[in-house]
Amino acid sequence: MKQEELQFIPLGGLGEVGRNMMVFGYEDRYIIIDCGVQFPDNSMIGVDYIIPDMQFLQGKEDKILGIIITHAHEDHIGGLPHLFDVLNNVPIYATPLTAGMIEVRLARAGKLTKTKINVKKAGEEFDLGKFHIETFHMTHSIPDSIGLAITTPAGLIVVSGDYKFDPTPIDNWPSDFAKLAELGTRNVLALFSDSTNSERPGTTPSEKDINKAFEEVFVNARGRVIISSFASLISRLQQLSTIARRHHRKICIVGTSMVDNVNLAKRLGYLDLPDEWVVTLEEALHLPDKEVLILCTGSQGEPTSIMGRLSTGKYYAFSIKEGDTVMLSSNPIPGNEERVSAVINRLYRMGANVIYNSLLSVHVSGHACQEEMKLLINLVKPEYFIPVHGELRHLYNQAKIGELMGIPKNRIFVVENGQTIKFHHGKARLAEQVPASMVLVDGTNVGDMNLDIMHQRERLADSGVIVITLMLDKDHHGLIRDPQIIHYGLMSGKETPDIEEDLRRTIIEYCGKKNSTGTNNIEKNIEQIVRKFIYNTTHRSPWVIVNPFYF
Amino acid sequence: MKQEELQFIPLGGLGEVGRNMMVFGYEDRYIIIDCGVQFPDNSMIGVDYIIPDMQFLQGKEDKILGIIITHAHEDHIGGLPHLFDVLNNVPIYATPLTAGMIEVRLARAGKLTKTKINVKKAGEEFDLGKFHIETFHMTHSIPDSIGLAITTPAGLIVVSGDYKFDPTPIDNWPSDFAKLAELGTRNVLALFSDSTNSERPGTTPSEKDINKAFEEVFVNARGRVIISSFASLISRLQQLSTIARRHHRKICIVGTSMVDNVNLAKRLGYLDLPDEWVVTLEEALHLPDKEVLILCTGSQGEPTSIMGRLSTGKYYAFSIKEGDTVMLSSNPIPGNEERVSAVINRLYRMGANVIYNSLLSVHVSGHACQEEMKLLINLVKPEYFIPVHGELRHLYNQAKIGELMGIPKNRIFVVENGQTIKFHHGKARLAEQVPASMVLVDGTNVGDMNLDIMHQRERLADSGVIVITLMLDKDHHGLIRDPQIIHYGLMSGKETPDIEEDLRRTIIEYCGKKNSTGTNNIEKNIEQIVRKFIYNTTHRSPWVIVNPFYF
Repeated sequence: MKQEELQFIPLGGLGEVGRNMMVFGYEDRYIIIDCGVQFPDNSMIGVDYIIPDMQFLQGKEDKILGIIITHAHEDHIGGLPHLFDVLNNVPIYATPLTAGMIEVRLARAGKLTKTKINVKKAGEEFDLGKFHIETFHMTHSIPDSIGLAITTPAGLIVVSGDYKFDPTPIDNWPSDFAKLAELGTRNVLALFSDSTNSERPGTTPSEKDINKAFEEVFVNARGRVIISSFASLISRLQQLSTIARRHHRKICIVGTSMVDNVNLAKRLGYLDLPDEWVVTLEEALHLPDKEVLILCTGSQGEPTSIMGRLSTGKYYAFSIKEGDTVMLSSNPIPGNEERVSAVINRLYRMGANVIYNSLLSVHVSGHACQEEMKLLINLVKPEYFIPVHGELRHLYNQAKIGELMGIPKNRIFVVENGQTIKFHHGKARLAEQVPASMVLVDGTNVGDMNLDIMHQRERLADSGVIVITLMLDKDHHGLIRDPQIIHYGLMSGKETPDIEEDLRRTIIEYCGKKNSTGTNNIEKNIEQIVRKFIYNTTHRSPWVIVNPFYF
Repeated sequence: MKQEELQFIPLGGLGEVGRNMMVFGYEDRYIIIDCGVQFPDNSMIGVDYIIPDMQFLQGKEDKILGIIITHAHEDHIGGLPHLFDVLNNVPIYATPLTAGMIEVRLARAGKLTKTKINVKKAGEEFDLGKFHIETFHMTHSIPDSIGLAITTPAGLIVVSGDYKFDPTPIDNWPSDFAKLAELGTRNVLALFSDSTNSERPGTTPSEKDINKAFEEVFVNARGRVIISSFASLISRLQQLSTIARRHHRKICIVGTSMVDNVNLAKRLGYLDLPDEWVVTLEEALHLPDKEVLILCTGSQGEPTSIMGRLSTGKYYAFSIKEGDTVMLSSNPIPGNEERVSAVINRLYRMGANVIYNSLLSVHVSGHACQEEMKLLINLVKPEYFIPVHGELRHLYNQAKIGELMGIPKNRIFVVENGQTIKFHHGKARLAEQVPASMVLVDGTNVGDMNLDIMHQRERLADSGVIVITLMLDKDHHGLIRDPQIIHYGLMSGKETPDIEEDLRRTIIEYCGKKNSTGTNNIEKNIEQIVRKFIYNTTHRSPWVIVNPFYF
């Protein structure tokens, strides 16, 4: 029997190769791994988030066997509501906590009926057509994360998922080294491995390593302790509430997403937080300051988050006061540095004792560093090595690690989204490109937010807009009224009326003169006159709309 | 004789307290220290840079004795052309290299006749009215930097300037420890000290510490070496060209600002780069790849810089090719991280071997870390300690260091721009506020770019604009033509004409109905109708302009 090719298709994400979605195909049947969103960079004005390009999947509905989700972070599940605009009745496979969080997401988006969520515990195996899937536990910054071993007639491939090798995780559940070692005996054709921290030497510290810093903060805190972190960082919430209990502080959780995650994690047994230790915000505000820990979102300085609003004094329920210890238990995600720094400055201004990672180790990364990457390669012993999950710079640097480990250069592939790889008879090669552009989402609109609009907005943002409305005589092209001038984002201040008046006079003069030449290019000419006039007066180049009406 | 008060007035800068400008006053006579610009953060769309608020100085021309510039970085000299819009005939005092760079700046701005630049070598003393100024050398990331000791009848104050204690600077000219120790014996009333790195423990590595990494890069480079850094980082250029010569590479400097600085520094003896080692770009491109070092600007990923254009393949003179070693010898300034990362990704894509600080130590900070701050306090022994040069977070953290060193808390002042401090009979107190808002500069316009305009632009950027022009019957308010719809940055794509048509019909319908009620609020009502319609159709909230004309 002729062996078919196994196809790898990385999709999605702003520069993040395969982070948000990867597809594997065999005999024209496909499995999808993860479906997440990416957040825009600062230059992408007005874009809410970015989802993977789903063109490749469109029309393949009956050929897609299932969607496997490795863990419940936004950049791995956030695109699911959009996926079900394109696909119907494709089942999801995920571990219990991941499944629970997906359910919440899809219910909110009204898409729960579009799929069936199948719960598979880490360690379980199942078949999707000719794909045999083995799941195995990997430690990461959210519990119940998994990696995947996928056996196909073309060979066995291993997907690391987002991972680090935390030797002492908060939930005492380390990565499944035994499984990884066992996979290493089975001739792994290719390893697809998380590249996020490939530029960092050594190993990522354990979640437990930051306990010491937390203890120090709780020992020294004279008043309330208010801590923001990621809503999905269940292990951090576990850690902080355990320490809070030891220091006789009740725990108050603020913010819908965090409350939802905590309740789900408690219900499923991923979080040990007895009810008698939890108080409402109302109750917390009436307790002595020394008996309270408030946990909330907003560690990235998001203006509408609880911490964002606390820092600007705009949170309705309470305010930061002198004596508060306020901690941001996270690092700024690249692009958020300025925003986070502004929050820190404002909290200092309010008199808080502010704690963040530049001062004290109150956050660790959830991703493997170089030594862990080497360990993974040594365990899995792949024929081919394909760095994924990272920007190109991270992929290249994990590729270097692969080379250092003795994998021949021609068996290491650095590819970008849309560049497929085919495996056949144990050999890999670059194959065709599939569409993999960024799909920008603004509001609830998918796709019709495109680069054109973004560039138009950039231009508006850069210099504003000016609209000139002209009422003209149909026959002679003379003005029958004074030109009307509206502008926005262009100028303000005392001299503005004068500039407007001068511009009006300039246009009237031109229209008077022009009459003699009888040109038809009045719109274009006046646009140029306005552009020149505004540039000379203000050194700006707004978008100029000339709007003539003929009577 | 009654002793007057000595007044300290920190001005200027986006959150950077006193970085860009500080003023000291005594008996209604003033001296200015530095006059720089700050670059906007990513949220300040369309702002080119920010200058200090000069309201306090306006009308005081004949009371300002001089402007002392501590070093030639943009954030300390860049505001001078604007200062001379407000002041005339106020002399500048600066060290030779600083004076040379100021001269170039002012000549370019056509402001050279507005002032006299007085050259004072580090170590020289001079009087400005009752202010006696002693200058002393401090190491920083540009040669010829100074700190100041200023004696007034109200006491002796010390200004650190931007500094680090580099024990092995490239120019072999360490900080003037003897002078600092001597000041420590003279009852220093107050120390104004650089806070930039107050969150970093230890000491900042020496410029010479990165020699090893540079050697490694040059030893391993197979083809051309192309390095970008700050145009003013003369010591880095010295270091790199010395190593290049050792490796038999000719040196090619590209970009006006870097060429200007190199020529000036060579002429004044701050850079040792024999002419026979320098080649033009034309010559460099004809030399064997192994014999070339190209130095250029753009280490912050600026799109119009040489490195920015090289990374997008838009530099006219040459292109990056496989085998090139490309180094960014700098760290991203906060806010530039995404842009720099994009440049790195693009350079990898072009096949270059990319070297940057996450991989190899190819840059060190120019500012003191915590241990150096402690040393400065131990040397100068001030009565009062006033952290400056940093965001509030950095000031608070240097204040903590002051406390740790035994300075009583009530003798440490953390103030923001505009909050003055007065010294009288050896005691300091907070005094009045003076205007110190951010003055935004866009193009060549100062000040009339204000927060209003910025917010209007933000709104335009966020959702675009739609203009509805209506021709109405004066008496009955009926439409005499179909409404005209123009939009920008709002929507594009196939369904756009349909949406426009629906909106047009909705407006026509409303105008037909409205006739019967005869309301006059047509503009407001239609604005609301359009807003609602657009929100329902696109989930966006553009700026809506309704523009009615009556006939």
